[in-house]
Amino acid sequence: MREVWVVGAAMNRFGKMRESGREAITSVALAALGRAGLEPNSVQHTFLSNCFGVAERQAHLGPLLNTGLGIPEVPSCTIESACSSTSAALHEAFVHVAGGFADVALVAGVEKLSHLNTLAATSYFAMGADYPFETCHGATFPGLYATLANAHQAKFGTTAEELGSVAVKNHANAAMNPHAHFQKPITMEAYLGSPMIASPLRLYDCCPFSDGAAAVVVAAREVTPEPAAEPLVIKASVRSGSIADMHDRPTLTGLPATRFAAEKAFRQAKITPKDVSFLEVHDCFTIAELMALEDLGFTPPGTAGKMTSSGATAIDGHVPVNPSGGLKAKGHPVSATGAGQVVEIFEQFNHEAGGRQVPNVEYALAHNVGATGGSCSVHIFGHR
Amino acid sequence: MREVWVVGAAMNRFGKMRESGREAITSVALAALGRAGLEPNSVQHTFLSNCFGVAERQAHLGPLLNTGLGIPEVPSCTIESACSSTSAALHEAFVHVAGGFADVALVAGVEKLSHLNTLAATSYFAMGADYPFETCHGATFPGLYATLANAHQAKFGTTAEELGSVAVKNHANAAMNPHAHFQKPITMEAYLGSPMIASPLRLYDCCPFSDGAAAVVVAAREVTPEPAAEPLVIKASVRSGSIADMHDRPTLTGLPATRFAAEKAFRQAKITPKDVSFLEVHDCFTIAELMALEDLGFTPPGTAGKMTSSGATAIDGHVPVNPSGGLKAKGHPVSATGAGQVVEIFEQFNHEAGGRQVPNVEYALAHNVGATGGSCSVHIFGHR
Repeated sequence: MREVWVVGAAMNRFGKMRESGREAITSVALAALGRAGLEPNSVQHTFLSNCFGVAERQAHLGPLLNTGLGIPEVPSCTIESACSSTSAALHEAFVHVAGGFADVALVAGVEKLSHLNTLAATSYFAMGADYPFETCHGATFPGLYATLANAHQAKFGTTAEELGSVAVKNHANAAMNPHAHFQKPITMEAYLGSPMIASPLRLYDCCPFSDGAAAVVVAAREVTPEPAAEPLVIKASVRSGSIADMHDRPTLTGLPATRFAAEKAFRQAKITPKDVSFLEVHDCFTIAELMALEDLGFTPPGTAGKMTSSGATAIDGHVPVNPSGGLKAKGHPVSATGAGQVVEIFEQFNHEAGGRQVPNVEYALAHNVGATGGSCSVHIFGHR
Repeated sequence: MREVWVVGAAMNRFGKMRESGREAITSVALAALGRAGLEPNSVQHTFLSNCFGVAERQAHLGPLLNTGLGIPEVPSCTIESACSSTSAALHEAFVHVAGGFADVALVAGVEKLSHLNTLAATSYFAMGADYPFETCHGATFPGLYATLANAHQAKFGTTAEELGSVAVKNHANAAMNPHAHFQKPITMEAYLGSPMIASPLRLYDCCPFSDGAAAVVVAAREVTPEPAAEPLVIKASVRSGSIADMHDRPTLTGLPATRFAAEKAFRQAKITPKDVSFLEVHDCFTIAELMALEDLGFTPPGTAGKMTSSGATAIDGHVPVNPSGGLKAKGHPVSATGAGQVVEIFEQFNHEAGGRQVPNVEYALAHNVGATGGSCSVHIFGHR
């Protein structure tokens, strides 16, 4: 098995794109290749994610991207795993490169939804849940995650202020991130005063719908021994699943898929949570960040709220979480989210994160969840 | 690199499904595993294709399938490449197993569209083409393939009867296939009398919209040395792309992606077209089967019509093509089509093809095209 590096990564500003998805992802892919110091013709396989292609009536975007890059003969496929699509695509790229099936692979994710009305966008998002047993009865993601938040509050006494501390921290981080959808801090008062969406989740507990594009270039160490930027060594690339429907799960206070993936990833990387310098986790709602910290093994079940309130997960804290601002404030263009996490880690490793720079980065972990946890990816990155 | 086998394969009858896509694919996956003599818990990765999940409001089907199989913790992802989705999924499974990342992988494709009206179904299909440059100007697949047929006729003098000979042959084959959507033969007179859809393509030149499900179980030789059925050894698994939009291509009388993939596949399998006992090719329209035979190297450009009219591609001919009936008559449930081709090859290798059995099978080739050839997969299978 060959050692696999992330040699380039780039994204646009998440939020609202004027250009089409195909234009955005082509620009961003070229930027990621440029960051790696590679020409497009070094790419041997493209893994594209675009869950809501139907919103642009475009369901076969890979060949359009490759044509735009001037490499039409290169194979492409679309990889989807709901909100964890580009981390699933990164895993496929990892497998191809580690196994010697490609030397250089491109992972690209894009989403454009802002031209739709909110109802249409919500209905597309909801397709990640289970139609006959969840969505058709009115459940959408705010409601499903509110159920998880209620269970967490009932079992552990998690407070509104603890949930709010995630939102306040992530907005503060995003205010220092030029790629972020929301670039202004919020106060706890503003959080507590924001309208209730699905109790106990308020407006500021919820990530936004964002347009966005992000791309990652993956290569075998031996074919790019001197990349243009400091590479990320992929120390672990793990995916897992769990019971798809929430009503059938043995627990609602965490996501079993995160636990399965984390356990395997730490074994693969041969490190423990103590070794991780910072994390990008899947905080589609504030409760999701708390559950992630517990399921990934960074704090015992029920204690992530206190950990966050204490400041331990702030950029200057013990273990910074979502220095980018996370899905919550950086934004959540579904198919660009997983790759966007890697862009943050790439910039941190290259000391390009400005005011949100984490000092002394050794290892970083990216955690990306599909839907309510039917799928999960965990990647661990380290230095060469 | 490990030798990879197809150890099980199954499909339902293509056509109209009463049950949901999730029910159908779960049954068919269990049947494929049963054929392999494997329990579901031997599966280590599921690669699912379901291009029109939006038609069932279900965009994260992998975890639902794995949950139904009793293996919720197993990772899954959705692989799409328009009409070549399950052959792209098979390639991912091949890479995982050959590279040692999984011992057993499940490839599963399903489509359910028959509950939609024809306009909605057509509009979903058309998303495989390019919206701003093709579809938004009114192009749908019959029109795009009619353009290819016109170019072929203009350059090579291909006749209506030559196109018709593909339809007559494939309907005759499907009449012997209990899995086929259409199980009755048609005459050349019926073909020539069928209504014009997009000149020169008549109704009987076009494959149907079908519901359907098909699954393939892939395993490393070393972990399943004695499978329950005669396995297919994957001698080549190759994917390629080409310029996505037809208007930018240097030629309209063939599909460049097929040529790229075929050349590489024959090199990988270390055989030539002469060694191939029969083919399953992508005949979404009759012209597509003629182009496939030419692009794959089975006959010189412009001669596939005469070859077909001569009977050389019939089951008792020199090189049988689409003994299953092909997309044309077996049906084309987009995401089940590629896996369905493998089911036919599996049944042929196991002497279970009844009246459509090809004698003396040594090697078989499966050819699956995405859209108008922006993507293509070629797989070559042989005996152990």
